[in-house]
Amino acid sequence: MTVEETVNSYRQYVKKIMDFNEAIALAEWDMRTGAPVKGISQRSEVVGTLSDEVFKRSISDEMKTYLDVLTDSSVQDKLDRVTRRMVEESRKTFNRFEHIPAEEYKAYVILQSEAQSVWQEAKAKSDFRQLQPYLEKIVDFKRKFIEYQGVKENKYNTLLDLYEPGLTTEIVDGVFKRLREGIVPIVQSVCASKDQPETGFLHNHLPADKLKAFCLHLLKENGYDFNAGRLDETEHPFEITLNPGDVRVTTNYQEDDFMSTVLGTIHEGGHALYEQHISRELVGTSLCEGTSMGIHESQSLFFENFIGRSKAYWALHFSELKKFASGQFDSVSLDDFYRAINVSHPSLIRTLADELTYPLHIMVRYDIEKELFNGNLEVSELPGVWNDKMKEYLGIMPDNDREGVLQDIHWPGGDFGYFPSYALGYVYAAQFKHAILKEHPDFDTLVSEGHLSVITKWLTMHIHRFGSLKKPFEILHDATGEGPNPEYLISYLSDKYSRIYNF
Amino acid sequence: MTVEETVNSYRQYVKKIMDFNEAIALAEWDMRTGAPVKGISQRSEVVGTLSDEVFKRSISDEMKTYLDVLTDSSVQDKLDRVTRRMVEESRKTFNRFEHIPAEEYKAYVILQSEAQSVWQEAKAKSDFRQLQPYLEKIVDFKRKFIEYQGVKENKYNTLLDLYEPGLTTEIVDGVFKRLREGIVPIVQSVCASKDQPETGFLHNHLPADKLKAFCLHLLKENGYDFNAGRLDETEHPFEITLNPGDVRVTTNYQEDDFMSTVLGTIHEGGHALYEQHISRELVGTSLCEGTSMGIHESQSLFFENFIGRSKAYWALHFSELKKFASGQFDSVSLDDFYRAINVSHPSLIRTLADELTYPLHIMVRYDIEKELFNGNLEVSELPGVWNDKMKEYLGIMPDNDREGVLQDIHWPGGDFGYFPSYALGYVYAAQFKHAILKEHPDFDTLVSEGHLSVITKWLTMHIHRFGSLKKPFEILHDATGEGPNPEYLISYLSDKYSRIYNF
Repeated sequence: MTVEETVNSYRQYVKKIMDFNEAIALAEWDMRTGAPVKGISQRSEVVGTLSDEVFKRSISDEMKTYLDVLTDSSVQDKLDRVTRRMVEESRKTFNRFEHIPAEEYKAYVILQSEAQSVWQEAKAKSDFRQLQPYLEKIVDFKRKFIEYQGVKENKYNTLLDLYEPGLTTEIVDGVFKRLREGIVPIVQSVCASKDQPETGFLHNHLPADKLKAFCLHLLKENGYDFNAGRLDETEHPFEITLNPGDVRVTTNYQEDDFMSTVLGTIHEGGHALYEQHISRELVGTSLCEGTSMGIHESQSLFFENFIGRSKAYWALHFSELKKFASGQFDSVSLDDFYRAINVSHPSLIRTLADELTYPLHIMVRYDIEKELFNGNLEVSELPGVWNDKMKEYLGIMPDNDREGVLQDIHWPGGDFGYFPSYALGYVYAAQFKHAILKEHPDFDTLVSEGHLSVITKWLTMHIHRFGSLKKPFEILHDATGEGPNPEYLISYLSDKYSRIYNF
Repeated sequence: MTVEETVNSYRQYVKKIMDFNEAIALAEWDMRTGAPVKGISQRSEVVGTLSDEVFKRSISDEMKTYLDVLTDSSVQDKLDRVTRRMVEESRKTFNRFEHIPAEEYKAYVILQSEAQSVWQEAKAKSDFRQLQPYLEKIVDFKRKFIEYQGVKENKYNTLLDLYEPGLTTEIVDGVFKRLREGIVPIVQSVCASKDQPETGFLHNHLPADKLKAFCLHLLKENGYDFNAGRLDETEHPFEITLNPGDVRVTTNYQEDDFMSTVLGTIHEGGHALYEQHISRELVGTSLCEGTSMGIHESQSLFFENFIGRSKAYWALHFSELKKFASGQFDSVSLDDFYRAINVSHPSLIRTLADELTYPLHIMVRYDIEKELFNGNLEVSELPGVWNDKMKEYLGIMPDNDREGVLQDIHWPGGDFGYFPSYALGYVYAAQFKHAILKEHPDFDTLVSEGHLSVITKWLTMHIHRFGSLKKPFEILHDATGEGPNPEYLISYLSDKYSRIYNF
């Protein structure tokens, strides 16, 4: 075969894998949005069969042959940019799974699925000991898988790199140290302020149908394309991509806490805009998705916090909210509304945390994960360490494990190394906003006058359209001229909260 | 490998094919119920990839090896009943596709998909000549594929057998001859009757949300399990099976013609009950679906006509309809309602035909298909022959091809041989009703007092649970003691319509 033929053949091979992945994504969307319960167990087997097919093809002899040819130095230079990045990604996956015995991986997948069920029960009963043996086995598997890749030092880096390619503990340590130094004093001032916002009206009842109509309206206003997506209802909101022409979001209508629905919808909508704007050239390649969890989260948080919690956005939309409602908010001023939706205080649950204290929740998890994989921390010690860390970072401690170490599904799901990308994404988002401000100093006016599309265009040009063609730090450097830098987030938070709380 | 090992390995192999099929079915359901338009073309490629995988595996060397071992006479007797039938089905598929060159089959699939698009346009413009070249190629492909199987005489039998295993022109000729002799005089008496039902109130407005609530109620009453299914809205109603725990139906809310929605929903619900009641033993085998188009249609028509158009059913549900409505039907008597929903007159469109004239529409199509494959009829002659046959069977003729030869999607879709199963299914349904009456002479009381489950249990015991484990004529024989026999349908129609029209 000529190089060109090999490239074509390789890309067709990858295209099939992507098609299988799309079928899997659809099955998952369907299971979460409304598949009848009695069909679920057989549907899970379908997902298993398709996943198995993807796994096998990713480490098949055929794949190995392609990779051997296409990573040869004499060939690499002749490859177009897309193919070269695809090959790099395929190689990474290949190396990751190559040395894991198939049986062992299967056992891990089953364990992971069991652990998530056990977690639900353990959480309900607030009983960490029930989950502990499963978590121990998961951590053992994870450690072993990392060793199979030949990694001996700083094993946690391997996990970080899974979600945020290029990320290391050195980088995170630096960023989180500064973030902590910057955020903790703000939190203290906020807590000490005598000028606390009034928030009672945020719990005024807004019926689900009105709330839905308002969410649909905001998504549209934010640029979400309903010809390339749809909004459904689920217990936990999420975004899922079938292909860039089919990027779906879900939300949950909380009639007595409508802003958590609104901000959740805007958040998922931010993820969706990223995926809807990926260049159509990348469809059918392995690069047709957001480049990392961090960059993805930067987009959802950009929309949730820098747009959705801004005064400019509500200068435009607060009067509309009043129209969707039936009088409940008529006596509320824009200023009071803005302060209320930015209320901040240390709390126990990460997913309910405000934008100021959120990064501290992530630091608790990061410290623990790092010790678990690079240090001597044992799974059995998690509840104690958790509580100590919460005290240290947030000054409060949970009464029970349900509101503590058991609150997140990530660890029973085997997702160690994932959490830091949430805070990193937040840091990136602030950097992107800073970069946009340089080009568009009238950022707030654009938002308040309904020209969000100017901003979204910037995001598309610098971030969205590339999919995974650029790596996360490449995106960040090209768009902002620097690497992860927490100063912009700190100054945003300091500036915003000192105004809201008058300190 | 021992025989047992071969059986296990073969059944796992088939299970994977079935999992792929479930993923395909989900993708199709999704595309028809609400997938965003911009994602459709890439989604179609996913369906293509999965279908290709199914096709390849059905005629693979691995499949051939299994079939060679498992169809050996020394082995066959040792197989359990399920495996034996699975092997028989696999062999049939293998033989069907074995000699078709892959490239030729692919060309056919593409042509078929193009032809369906062209058909939509041609139908809108009522221009048969636009479709003609596509239809000619499809018929050529079909003829060639039949020849590849070594069939020389009565090629149409091969097509009939695809949808209704065991069916031949000899059987259809006999059944249709008697049906025609039986039905035509009834139609003449109906037309001549001075006592025509009043039907105006069937077009009283019923808002979609009320109509939906009523349909959900009736489906539940008819035994449809919403934990193993769901109801969505589409332009054309359909039933689709993911697995027996996930059998979905759709309907279309026609606010000014609510009975067509109600009867359409009951019809699809009849298909769904069949699939929901298939024995769980058959999940993951190739037998986990209705055994033929005819038997399937017998279940939908049983519910639509013998239940949904019966006076007993509406004795129970007419007062409920009045509650779902808001006064529109208060002055209508049950008797008038019953007569209205059974109004009959010759009409041009099959899908809108009443239960009395429906079989005549099928006969028109059967005569044409038979001549096309067994005789000398050319595609170019279709419009003329169509109109002549309509005149002959129904006494009316369309003004244009849109309401004539272009009305159905089946032929551009390559589905020749499918139509007869609609009428056959109707014949079966009448036979099943006769058999049930022997065991439950109080059939009407069961229906009017809400004990439909007794009847459904009979259907489950004799038909549903077997899936494709029994062939259609085996089902029919075991349940009714005879083969296809049109007399029960004729006497049902004769009896019912002479009462309604007083002749």
